[in-house]
Amino acid sequence: MTFSEKFHLRIPGPTPIPSRVQQAMNQPIFGHRSQEATQLIQECSQKLKPIFGTGQDPLILTSSGTSALEAAVINTLSPGDEALVIVTGSFGDRFAKIVERYEFTLHRLDIEWGKSCSPEQLRIALQQHPKTKAVFVTYCETSTGVLNPIEELSKVVHTHSEALFVVDGVSCIGAVPCQMDDWGLDVVVTGSQKALMLPPGLSFIAVSRRAWRQIEQNQMPSFYLNLLQYRNSLSQSTTPYTPAISLLLGLKEALCMLEEEGLEQVFQRHELLMSMCRTGVQSMGLTLMASKQDASPTVTSIYGGGAEAWSSEDVRKHLKQLRVLVAGGQQHLKGQIFRIGHMGYCDSLDILTALSALEIALTQAGVPISLGSGVKAAQEVYLHHV
Amino acid sequence: MTFSEKFHLRIPGPTPIPSRVQQAMNQPIFGHRSQEATQLIQECSQKLKPIFGTGQDPLILTSSGTSALEAAVINTLSPGDEALVIVTGSFGDRFAKIVERYEFTLHRLDIEWGKSCSPEQLRIALQQHPKTKAVFVTYCETSTGVLNPIEELSKVVHTHSEALFVVDGVSCIGAVPCQMDDWGLDVVVTGSQKALMLPPGLSFIAVSRRAWRQIEQNQMPSFYLNLLQYRNSLSQSTTPYTPAISLLLGLKEALCMLEEEGLEQVFQRHELLMSMCRTGVQSMGLTLMASKQDASPTVTSIYGGGAEAWSSEDVRKHLKQLRVLVAGGQQHLKGQIFRIGHMGYCDSLDILTALSALEIALTQAGVPISLGSGVKAAQEVYLHHV
Repeated sequence: MTFSEKFHLRIPGPTPIPSRVQQAMNQPIFGHRSQEATQLIQECSQKLKPIFGTGQDPLILTSSGTSALEAAVINTLSPGDEALVIVTGSFGDRFAKIVERYEFTLHRLDIEWGKSCSPEQLRIALQQHPKTKAVFVTYCETSTGVLNPIEELSKVVHTHSEALFVVDGVSCIGAVPCQMDDWGLDVVVTGSQKALMLPPGLSFIAVSRRAWRQIEQNQMPSFYLNLLQYRNSLSQSTTPYTPAISLLLGLKEALCMLEEEGLEQVFQRHELLMSMCRTGVQSMGLTLMASKQDASPTVTSIYGGGAEAWSSEDVRKHLKQLRVLVAGGQQHLKGQIFRIGHMGYCDSLDILTALSALEIALTQAGVPISLGSGVKAAQEVYLHHV
Repeated sequence: MTFSEKFHLRIPGPTPIPSRVQQAMNQPIFGHRSQEATQLIQECSQKLKPIFGTGQDPLILTSSGTSALEAAVINTLSPGDEALVIVTGSFGDRFAKIVERYEFTLHRLDIEWGKSCSPEQLRIALQQHPKTKAVFVTYCETSTGVLNPIEELSKVVHTHSEALFVVDGVSCIGAVPCQMDDWGLDVVVTGSQKALMLPPGLSFIAVSRRAWRQIEQNQMPSFYLNLLQYRNSLSQSTTPYTPAISLLLGLKEALCMLEEEGLEQVFQRHELLMSMCRTGVQSMGLTLMASKQDASPTVTSIYGGGAEAWSSEDVRKHLKQLRVLVAGGQQHLKGQIFRIGHMGYCDSLDILTALSALEIALTQAGVPISLGSGVKAAQEVYLHHV
């Protein structure tokens, strides 16, 4: 397969780029200190506000999501501070690794992979670690397809502690509701290559007033990831360092598309895609990793058949021959699960396409399924919905 | 002016994007852990080697140039280390700011803006600061259009100290010779949006064996900018965090274009562009900031007429009406100079276009010049050269 051939990118990011966004990026470059750039940055930051559900101006960084996670850690914690990291999968684990790298005191709240963190689990952890300065959580845990109950967890944080509540929303913000201000989220981070329908290369951080006060007092040195610099620059509608201008052009277009569809409709579309995907694979007799209550509208994790039966990697290979690309499992889940991404520029027919290919791939892998059964079940979900 | 209108971007970065590069980026996105991505990263790193003049594998970061400057500082210096920063303009000053932010001991070698640092000046500074662990220098100082004599300065560093020699090559690598290994440069940094003809969003770092040994011992915590992580990942032809894939597609195409032209020819072209630009503006009676010996082949700084005569900002405004965009002065040079960028996707006719517009703009600004005089002088340089 070459880059230019037709394929179906159903991994949980990067996600397909709409041609409107592609075309917006396909423009002559211009100076980042020009009036055009200033206007572009201002428009993008304004249009990001409803995505985060905040009145604060979201910051735009030229870098991938991990750097924004790092920025969230090193701008909120000062030397000696204690952090409670909710680890529901490999991206929660990344937050923990960053906290450790900078030698803050790390308290891990490890949750079984495939499950979300319950408010009660968090309450107990906060009781055990009353000096916690910030709680870090992953909204959608991409490695398992689990969505953590952010609104409820935020209540627990603010009822039982003075800690900031920092949310990694990389693989769901723009696809699921986020009412940052109403829910009391203090820092919310996302990236360009997931629900925002852009190539990788930009990350975004929204910060509450309360978190800004802590950031203003912060003792950790930082330069490229110093959020105060980004705030200062954004107040003049610019960035402290050269931004990825072509991606900003794409961002504006992508945000226009989300506006035009309407955020509520965008969220409902993702709910439908999840429902079609989950119902479809279940009807094939496959096992879902996340319960209905824990499942993310952006990515679905499916178990392989276990040691005695079939390997998820084998199914992925057959899918690839059909030019449908899905993700495997990470860390200890490698070979155990595969993951279908359904966020961003994705519609119902994309799910039906993926399911029909999956049925072929399973058959080729020797898994006894009834062809068309998953597609039919998903079609019924669709018909019931519209 | 809207983005889509025709204009001439003659600022010292971002620089115009060739349509071949634009088209290469205009492809469907794919996964960063795919075989396609692996091959792309490997090809890009290999093709970057001659640009840096090194046998080491250049690292690719998704971020703008400043983050690579920061990475060069925090990966080479450990707490308590002394750094000598050669400051020939605002980008040398940025290196100094990063060193200060992390509370390393900073020794500034301040050179008058518009002049390069001489080997003798550096020798004396090194004698004064014998514990210097790393010397930081800007190859092309974008704020003044000065090229520092890197090869000679490197000799001084290695003859008179054990320090690493760290070079910011952002606004010239790919347009001027760089023989990193032969010259003994320890770290060389550049960005995508200058001579490499790409949008902003990628930065590149090449590291000598000697510098790797110091980096391996490094005591500073870092995560997104941890160079050891990038080296580990690159040994498997990947990146530790999601790379800006579309920019990588463009990078490969841009590096192919440089290969096809031949690096020697690329360097000669930039020499010619500089020579045409300098001769042209001098023939209009304007004053160049950098001497012939100090001048960079990538950007030319020109004095306005001083307080009694005309403002460089006024000329820039008239140029903008003609859709020719040049840069102003930075920091204390604001209003004092303007800067014409001539790097990357730039040829002789682009210089003649800029000069012809400049003659009109000067006339409109009331500066008494003879129309066509600058263009004629530049044409003569061109004819003499070919």
